[in-house]
Amino acid sequence: MRPTRFDFDLSNCGIQRALDVLGEKWTLLVLREAFYGVHRFDDFARALGCGRGVLSDRLKTLVAANVLELRDYAEPGLRPRSEYYLTAKGRDLFPALMALSQWSERWDPAPDGPVADVTDRRSGRRARVIISADARAKPLSLSELDIAPGPGARRIKRK
Amino acid sequence: MRPTRFDFDLSNCGIQRALDVLGEKWTLLVLREAFYGVHRFDDFARALGCGRGVLSDRLKTLVAANVLELRDYAEPGLRPRSEYYLTAKGRDLFPALMALSQWSERWDPAPDGPVADVTDRRSGRRARVIISADARAKPLSLSELDIAPGPGARRIKRK
Repeated sequence: MRPTRFDFDLSNCGIQRALDVLGEKWTLLVLREAFYGVHRFDDFARALGCGRGVLSDRLKTLVAANVLELRDYAEPGLRPRSEYYLTAKGRDLFPALMALSQWSERWDPAPDGPVADVTDRRSGRRARVIISADARAKPLSLSELDIAPGPGARRIKRK
Repeated sequence: MRPTRFDFDLSNCGIQRALDVLGEKWTLLVLREAFYGVHRFDDFARALGCGRGVLSDRLKTLVAANVLELRDYAEPGLRPRSEYYLTAKGRDLFPALMALSQWSERWDPAPDGPVADVTDRRSGRRARVIISADARAKPLSLSELDIAPGPGARRIKRK
């Protein structure tokens, strides 16, 4: 059977347009770090262990797409620098990242359990990404969630 | 403030492990085509317009990760060939792809509206990806959804 796929031009498809911004591993990992509270270039570089050129490119793409925004900060005695913060548009990518993480935990669970526990701040109940057609179902936003280290979190021992 | 991020080793994080399989644009677009009903190598190549080497690599990665599976088919008079089908694990990626698409439609809406309408097969109501901590909320699975061309779908005119 010929798929009906070929009756359509999907160049304006939302998945395609999302991937035009996010379409490779480093970009999504930069976002992961932003959700984990990383803001400075040197911290992103250290967290990801990727080349500084690649990182600089990815951060520029995310700023241009209004997913991250630059804010200046100054420490006493040092020249002002920039920090990267998630915009509202960027924070709204959390369900997509959480869906990817949930998928891994379901099909290839980490031996010690999830790295992060995501719960409803109010009820303390475990949060999950679902597809729903219930108009009354109120989606939880990032600010309503508590993201805490889970059973699989590996704390780094410092000397 | 130093992010607590650096107290932890995230190498076993679910996002990271998902991206080890899915971490670039072509892989996610291959999956998009699988959800749109494409099964044959030549059809994937035509739908994506990517090089056959890249496509072959991505399909192998997805089969090795048990996201796609090979099934043989034979047309009368032709030698048997293989088709690629989503496994249960592959179908379970739909919420992640739908979350990416929903994000694009929210923040960079296509001028004519979404390319696809995803509805609950039973109620006909629009389906959406949400984060929920309501244990009673029943997630809709792919088989409970109807995916139809939306207002932004561009039908290809054939001569």
